[in-house]
Amino acid sequence: MIETPAVVVDRDVLERNVARTAEAVAARGLALRPHVKTHKIPEIAALQLAAGAVGITVATIGEAEVFADRGAADVFIAYPLWLSEAKAARLRALRDRASVAVGVDSADAARHLGAAVPGLEVLVEVDSGHHRSGVHPGAVVPIAQAARDAGLAVVGAFTFPGHSYGPDAAAVAARGERDALVAAGEALRTAGFDVRVLSGGSTPSLAATEDGGATEVRPGVYVFGDAQQWELGHVDPSDIALTVLATVVSVHDDRVILDAGSKILGADRAAWATGHGRLLEHPGARITALSEHHATVTGVPLGLGDVVRVVPNHVCNVVNLVDEVLVVRRGEVEGRWAVAARGRNS
Amino acid sequence: MIETPAVVVDRDVLERNVARTAEAVAARGLALRPHVKTHKIPEIAALQLAAGAVGITVATIGEAEVFADRGAADVFIAYPLWLSEAKAARLRALRDRASVAVGVDSADAARHLGAAVPGLEVLVEVDSGHHRSGVHPGAVVPIAQAARDAGLAVVGAFTFPGHSYGPDAAAVAARGERDALVAAGEALRTAGFDVRVLSGGSTPSLAATEDGGATEVRPGVYVFGDAQQWELGHVDPSDIALTVLATVVSVHDDRVILDAGSKILGADRAAWATGHGRLLEHPGARITALSEHHATVTGVPLGLGDVVRVVPNHVCNVVNLVDEVLVVRRGEVEGRWAVAARGRNS
Repeated sequence: MIETPAVVVDRDVLERNVARTAEAVAARGLALRPHVKTHKIPEIAALQLAAGAVGITVATIGEAEVFADRGAADVFIAYPLWLSEAKAARLRALRDRASVAVGVDSADAARHLGAAVPGLEVLVEVDSGHHRSGVHPGAVVPIAQAARDAGLAVVGAFTFPGHSYGPDAAAVAARGERDALVAAGEALRTAGFDVRVLSGGSTPSLAATEDGGATEVRPGVYVFGDAQQWELGHVDPSDIALTVLATVVSVHDDRVILDAGSKILGADRAAWATGHGRLLEHPGARITALSEHHATVTGVPLGLGDVVRVVPNHVCNVVNLVDEVLVVRRGEVEGRWAVAARGRNS
Repeated sequence: MIETPAVVVDRDVLERNVARTAEAVAARGLALRPHVKTHKIPEIAALQLAAGAVGITVATIGEAEVFADRGAADVFIAYPLWLSEAKAARLRALRDRASVAVGVDSADAARHLGAAVPGLEVLVEVDSGHHRSGVHPGAVVPIAQAARDAGLAVVGAFTFPGHSYGPDAAAVAARGERDALVAAGEALRTAGFDVRVLSGGSTPSLAATEDGGATEVRPGVYVFGDAQQWELGHVDPSDIALTVLATVVSVHDDRVILDAGSKILGADRAAWATGHGRLLEHPGARITALSEHHATVTGVPLGLGDVVRVVPNHVCNVVNLVDEVLVVRRGEVEGRWAVAARGRNS
């Protein structure tokens, strides 16, 4: 008997997802460096590393610390860090227990990083069309030179093709990723840099990854899947490993209310999403409104006390809302995993 | 030196907000029972109670437990609970240390509650136009009778006028709240019930509350304010007490990137919001995109390393993302408050 609402991970599905992506990426000759911000759980990182991942990707120093303390030996912080004195000290300490690389996307940031953490490995971030951080591939060389001059070790370039998150967007994003990484790699090599890594990847664009660009990929969501991936056609509902168990608490002619809201499902809703999440066993149902503790569901006849599995829109933000997840296998609770890096935003 | 990103509460502004709303509600002859899901912090509940609140409102048994253990003597769980055996046992135990009332919106739920927690006080939930949980005011009597027959103590009715969350929506929501509570109260009295409480209220509708309806109000967000309240015109930016301190980590011709994303700002974005949050000191700036650790800001010239105060769209979900908030007074860190009820979703 699981108390609702609760985040539940189906271990068989999880392990299948980990193995399938590891095999698919290896078959293409790419390195896999999964982004663990999706799960924040060292036990899952261990499964990914055992399946052949070359290391892990994180977004913050805090996440890197948690995973390094739990055995991750090779960590890429895929973020353009701007270090305070305290963060610089933490990053220097982190390098004593793991191989660490970070992102950089300006000459000023490179000088700031180099002064704080001499010898640190960096990858120059390029913008492949998502228009977040990262520079045009034509601008990588001065940044790499500033990094080298500041005492950093430039090992390559990276990009996040986040514009893959939209209907029919995967192929365009994958092409953008390839073009940006090829251009950045050529520019760096021409300028005399030894380019060891060209890193890309996102779960939506993964299957569309084009040959000749990335040497490694950093998908995150593939371990669990979520309603966004389902609605974008990148995951079959049978491969969704994480759901939020919820109970019907109120029934009306046109809707029922579940005891799960944005404080456990997250508030993500892309413009193209059909609702605030899906119900795994009821593909015709829609969550048409979401409060902090209420999900309003239409399109399925449910009764008071019924328990359903909600597929959240964006799983990365769900895991960050709970201290632990329940691990089930064939419907039985097998254990609990602490979300060890929850809330490690800095 | 505060490490970013971090949630910061300005104590002077907070105390002013607590006092101002307490006075305004008292001047109208209404009881104030603030919803503490907004802050989840016992120290803030203590300020509210010291300013005259008659009790507190929570959304879950878990929140009620945390606040009762920290001195809250009178707790309304404004939610249509459907009790598992474990939840029933917790609710019975809670009644040993606090006065507790809960919501009910069907005869079946009333019978279920009555069997689990005999003598429990309940308020029938009515729908005043938000169309979430709650019934039409014309349907309250059979529910109240079922509750009485099941051994529950019916003390009144409540509604949440959540349709106040929209441009120019406050007056309509306040009118709907009044009409629903008047109708529910009259129906219950006519059927022989002693109606002690008619409970309404939301921060957007508070100033528009109409006389003759609610006897108590349950606003939550007023303690902090947020970008939603700012954009709806219900709070002046100078009265916003909670912000997320963030650092500029990447600068481009048309945008800058902050080190705060949806994992600390929350992913809430109403259709009418102008972006994913605002910058307190830069009202012309907009957060045009939000990832988990990146906020993309346009409309303000900022440089690498600049620190800004971000006003999140929906503050209730922000506090639920962090273990503690920094308390500042006149720019100096005075202490830290644990978010004691963070993640208490059940």
